[in-house]
Amino acid sequence: MIRVAIIGQGLVATHFAVGLERLKNNEIPDHGVPLGTRLPYKYSDIEIAASYDIDESKIGKSLYEIAKKSYEGPGEIPRALKDIYVRRGIHLASTRGLPIKARGREEESDLKIAVEEIIGEWSELGVDVVVNVMTTEPVEAVGSIEKLHRGFENADLTASQTYAYMAALYSSRYSSAAFINAIPSPIANDPAFIELYKNSRAVVFGDDGATGATPLTADLLEHLYERGRRVLGVAQFNIGGNMDFYALNMPERNIMKKITKSSMIEDILGYHAPNYIRPTGYLEPLGDKKFVAMIIEYLSFGEFKDELYIVARINDSPALAGLLVDLVRLGKLAIEREAYGTVYEVNAFYMKKPGPPGSKVISKFHAYLKLLKWLKLRDHRIPE
Amino acid sequence: MIRVAIIGQGLVATHFAVGLERLKNNEIPDHGVPLGTRLPYKYSDIEIAASYDIDESKIGKSLYEIAKKSYEGPGEIPRALKDIYVRRGIHLASTRGLPIKARGREEESDLKIAVEEIIGEWSELGVDVVVNVMTTEPVEAVGSIEKLHRGFENADLTASQTYAYMAALYSSRYSSAAFINAIPSPIANDPAFIELYKNSRAVVFGDDGATGATPLTADLLEHLYERGRRVLGVAQFNIGGNMDFYALNMPERNIMKKITKSSMIEDILGYHAPNYIRPTGYLEPLGDKKFVAMIIEYLSFGEFKDELYIVARINDSPALAGLLVDLVRLGKLAIEREAYGTVYEVNAFYMKKPGPPGSKVISKFHAYLKLLKWLKLRDHRIPE
Amino acid sequence: MIRVAIIGQGLVATHFAVGLERLKNNEIPDHGVPLGTRLPYKYSDIEIAASYDIDESKIGKSLYEIAKKSYEGPGEIPRALKDIYVRRGIHLASTRGLPIKARGREEESDLKIAVEEIIGEWSELGVDVVVNVMTTEPVEAVGSIEKLHRGFENADLTASQTYAYMAALYSSRYSSAAFINAIPSPIANDPAFIELYKNSRAVVFGDDGATGATPLTADLLEHLYERGRRVLGVAQFNIGGNMDFYALNMPERNIMKKITKSSMIEDILGYHAPNYIRPTGYLEPLGDKKFVAMIIEYLSFGEFKDELYIVARINDSPALAGLLVDLVRLGKLAIEREAYGTVYEVNAFYMKKPGPPGSKVISKFHAYLKLLKWLKLRDHRIPE
Amino acid sequence: MIRVAIIGQGLVATHFAVGLERLKNNEIPDHGVPLGTRLPYKYSDIEIAASYDIDESKIGKSLYEIAKKSYEGPGEIPRALKDIYVRRGIHLASTRGLPIKARGREEESDLKIAVEEIIGEWSELGVDVVVNVMTTEPVEAVGSIEKLHRGFENADLTASQTYAYMAALYSSRYSSAAFINAIPSPIANDPAFIELYKNSRAVVFGDDGATGATPLTADLLEHLYERGRRVLGVAQFNIGGNMDFYALNMPERNIMKKITKSSMIEDILGYHAPNYIRPTGYLEPLGDKKFVAMIIEYLSFGEFKDELYIVARINDSPALAGLLVDLVRLGKLAIEREAYGTVYEVNAFYMKKPGPPGSKVISKFHAYLKLLKWLKLRDHRIPE
Repeated sequence: MIRVAIIGQGLVATHFAVGLERLKNNEIPDHGVPLGTRLPYKYSDIEIAASYDIDESKIGKSLYEIAKKSYEGPGEIPRALKDIYVRRGIHLASTRGLPIKARGREEESDLKIAVEEIIGEWSELGVDVVVNVMTTEPVEAVGSIEKLHRGFENADLTASQTYAYMAALYSSRYSSAAFINAIPSPIANDPAFIELYKNSRAVVFGDDGATGATPLTADLLEHLYERGRRVLGVAQFNIGGNMDFYALNMPERNIMKKITKSSMIEDILGYHAPNYIRPTGYLEPLGDKKFVAMIIEYLSFGEFKDELYIVARINDSPALAGLLVDLVRLGKLAIEREAYGTVYEVNAFYMKKPGPPGSKVISKFHAYLKLLKWLKLRDHRIPE
Repeated sequence: MIRVAIIGQGLVATHFAVGLERLKNNEIPDHGVPLGTRLPYKYSDIEIAASYDIDESKIGKSLYEIAKKSYEGPGEIPRALKDIYVRRGIHLASTRGLPIKARGREEESDLKIAVEEIIGEWSELGVDVVVNVMTTEPVEAVGSIEKLHRGFENADLTASQTYAYMAALYSSRYSSAAFINAIPSPIANDPAFIELYKNSRAVVFGDDGATGATPLTADLLEHLYERGRRVLGVAQFNIGGNMDFYALNMPERNIMKKITKSSMIEDILGYHAPNYIRPTGYLEPLGDKKFVAMIIEYLSFGEFKDELYIVARINDSPALAGLLVDLVRLGKLAIEREAYGTVYEVNAFYMKKPGPPGSKVISKFHAYLKLLKWLKLRDHRIPE
Repeated sequence: MIRVAIIGQGLVATHFAVGLERLKNNEIPDHGVPLGTRLPYKYSDIEIAASYDIDESKIGKSLYEIAKKSYEGPGEIPRALKDIYVRRGIHLASTRGLPIKARGREEESDLKIAVEEIIGEWSELGVDVVVNVMTTEPVEAVGSIEKLHRGFENADLTASQTYAYMAALYSSRYSSAAFINAIPSPIANDPAFIELYKNSRAVVFGDDGATGATPLTADLLEHLYERGRRVLGVAQFNIGGNMDFYALNMPERNIMKKITKSSMIEDILGYHAPNYIRPTGYLEPLGDKKFVAMIIEYLSFGEFKDELYIVARINDSPALAGLLVDLVRLGKLAIEREAYGTVYEVNAFYMKKPGPPGSKVISKFHAYLKLLKWLKLRDHRIPE
Repeated sequence: MIRVAIIGQGLVATHFAVGLERLKNNEIPDHGVPLGTRLPYKYSDIEIAASYDIDESKIGKSLYEIAKKSYEGPGEIPRALKDIYVRRGIHLASTRGLPIKARGREEESDLKIAVEEIIGEWSELGVDVVVNVMTTEPVEAVGSIEKLHRGFENADLTASQTYAYMAALYSSRYSSAAFINAIPSPIANDPAFIELYKNSRAVVFGDDGATGATPLTADLLEHLYERGRRVLGVAQFNIGGNMDFYALNMPERNIMKKITKSSMIEDILGYHAPNYIRPTGYLEPLGDKKFVAMIIEYLSFGEFKDELYIVARINDSPALAGLLVDLVRLGKLAIEREAYGTVYEVNAFYMKKPGPPGSKVISKFHAYLKLLKWLKLRDHRIPE
């Protein structure tokens, strides 16, 4: 069994919960789960043990009730979700500026007490994997483990950092756990957390789940690189109507995404190409199905200029939810393999900003090969 | 030195000739040449020794004169092209239906005599590589070597097949040569030619140079496959204003392209997805810069449907010309390695329908890796 | 009351029937009905009196049963449709080549008998408007009224022509009716039918309902014309997965659409611009929501070249069904105004190939103004 | 003769100057000039009498020298431009934050003196029309004529406002002039300026020349309105590499564009539709040929959702330059007609934010009709 605690019961978590139960019930095929049945864990091995949020309108509700309100997809909401209730989590001002009535457990007592309570719950539930899918928060890497400990002591960390710290504490006290950081906050890219996780016999995957147009852009750039084409410039626009776009529309949160993508182009192409890649706006009627528009201009042989335009409509939350079905299983696997700290081969494929710090961004195609190799899996489509 | 004979002095051959000389003169960077300077031959090792065509308006003209008329690009036409004249080639009705006043050498004497004359010219010039870039012709594979010999005896082959046969004759009589079949005619996919080439100590690469939207589609499908997404359907439209689109607009020639692409989707995805992929029309004002429009619909996690639209403007002839700069060098290399018959690792990357017959279509990403491996080259961007 | 007989109970007719009943029930707003409530008839004045088809799987079924099978939209199928049954219609080989088991009433008895029976039914039901939404058939204009009469006598007309003839017969014998020809068959563009309708005190609107990308193209061309831009070329691709695309994929039926659009560009721009506009393919998974891709290249001031790319996803059948809600009311109105023959002001807006024969294609913007003027309606958004 | 003074010798002014001379020389057709030869003035009646800028690298240079550096188009730079020199203009911090070494005439002496000098120059040159094409500046309407006079006295106006004030002064003292405000600064939308212009027997056209994707969006919305479709949302992205995009990338200048477009959607559709329309970014390699991407989602009949995606590449400066060829002639015409203040019929077609204040935005199609009517011109394509 893989027992999962979710941080942030937003749309991604809801799609994960609904999809997972429907997968277990054989109601849907496993589209959008990259490794599918090739991993040594079955879908039915995964169990959502707990969920945390700080939105007053969600706390105390069952995942079933939450899905009823926000899930707009084919099929029925699985009844199994009636048994999982949202618990009050750590707030630490992570929703500042968002239209949410929020109150964290630390606001009811004290951060230390809240932390101990939650770790206690994890221990009781036998949590293996903590999945962080809260809304994007503005934050920078801590840097050194001393500063990290101090930050925790002084309640100076963000919510994500605090949860990541808690997962390490939990691992060192009870049993090794994996922390899946699917948002841009630098955890797997923070040397402080890498050191902490190694010391604590814990695993962190991150940062920022590789969905949307960015992995596609990476592979398009790889495609152009392999043909020797010279990329002149890349512009990529994103607009959507979910809470994450609402949050990213705030300049201080938007910057998180720009950082995520900054080195990708140079790492893949081997030279700098001017670019403009970032979430661009919020348009409510688009809902969770975002609109992406992209232009790539490049020089072909003889300096002729070609143009590539991509327009895409992508269901934002389901895409990440599908990756989580792999990531929670890979988290458990990494623990079993005692791959403490982080695993580049996992991050390179599943994350936009793969840790550990200083890692190169490679195309997703190359990352996929590295992942298969780490898993000792073969690609049966490819002749030897 | 690599001495090249060109079959079909159309736009591709002109871009190849102009670009190659400009490369040698250091007037342009080597964009669009996939392997660039990583091959053991320098650009200056390549020399265009002869060019054949059957268009009365080209025969006897220098490549300089031809480029003056048809080349619309940046920079000057290299003066070195003043010394290469277009010779009358084999016609065999290859231009039927096209608005070209054509007359082949066999129409002036007799096919046997014409063949012997041209092989004699190749021998005199020390030709190493024959590059076939004539207009798409309607033709099927011959199948058996007996039928192939008989077809040649009875003048029953198409122009491409006849040239390919001549390259084999030349190889067995004088010295090993490579035949680069950059058009859809099945040569590297014809068991008869594979056997003939092995027997003749010759090399054939083919079929149908992998330019335009098809290699991009292959890599997009690979990208979706690796994420477990279920492709529902693919439509891809192409329209252009060059002679090749004019020819492909004729139903019997169009079918050549449909065959080329038929197995790609199933080979890459591992299942059949309905598709409509073929050159769609001719629109003169677009000239050589074709317009491509594509839709790919797929299911993401939880059966949510995403849509991907690609619009591209691609300079058709320069793209293929850039590949030829690699292919002529790889042809020479294959001869030196005595890799007689054909080389899948080369075809898989550079061709839309890679021979030998029965080969799987793999994504270009995978083909690139196979190519590097065959060449014993490393990709320095990718960490071990 | 406006009593409507439908010819061809395909998707368009089903969307019309479902949407109309839902409109009457106030279950949906009247989006996609251009004139909305500005006409002197209410939605509840419209009644579907009869429906004809030759598909054995539909004959005898209620519109409710048919909608249950083919209608994929929001909301419930209205129960009122349980009372309308599909009657066997005239076949005359109109489905040749289509995957439909068809049998017409004339095949059970004789064309004359079948015609008289159906006219009798219309008379009994008090039909005011006949709406032709059968699948595109290959057919040319008859030309003279003598040939038309002869064609009817000799059973030489197509199904659409025969129904149009029947509506005229019905009008002269019983009471004036309107025939809405929403498919490409030239009826309103056939001088023979115009004369027949005038003589018979009947009204025909046609031809080919203006949905999809063609009206948009017309208005884009108008937009460019009004800025003095020089259009270099237009390519427009369409692909869909409904029966109409299946039929249009057959060359002899495809030609019907090419004719429809041939004069549009020249009429609007005032000069010829090379173009390629026609339905391009059939891709089953797209269903009724077609994919349109378009490029327009034009010269701006100083001969700079701009490019405009349009990609659209359009629900094919609902778009036409919405126009029909206007057209049946306008048909009744035209009869009341004794505007026998045809009405250019109606056709110019609602049809791709507006009759009478020889009419200019104007942009839909201009057509809309003409329509309002004919209706003596004002546009309250526009200051005097 | 129409003698023109240009404010801001940037790319637009250069395209205007080059294109105008080439038009006069019959070197180019008049594409992109909406009214072409239908106005009572010939192209050869237009003469650029003076040009003002505050960029030290331009002052004192001839328009020929400036075009040599910045004009990248077909054809030769006309030699007539050798005789027009850039004069030092009014600065008033209009370039704050831009990478330009700027110094205004008022910085050399005093604003009053500078103003008098320039008005003197206009009088000497017999200027009829002043064209304002300086870089977008952040500014709000003044409101009352008292405040406007006070602002001028206290040197509190922006550069655009000061020039507009000067054109009024010039008109009242010497002879009536027209001020063409092709940038977003509210001049024709400022009640203060309208009153001033009426009093001064001057004409102002404005504000913000209607080029790029906004007029196209207006007409697309009109197209949807006329079909009764319900627009759910509109997003439009713009990115370019010229100075105007550089400036608009600065938040305080970007806001100018947002204001320009705010009422358009509601005015045309008759209801509010959520939208996100504004210049989005700066990407140097795109140069003057901007990339526009747009999505419009709407409901069709039966509440089916359609999607429209527009991708465009538009040469930014030539488009506006072509409009100026009309506007300077219309300015002269308005003076002759004594249409003092402003002319809505002109603004509605040529401007994004048509004055006078409080004017409705109408679609460009309707604006075109109003313009023709004001000019007493007929559209010969449209049957009566």
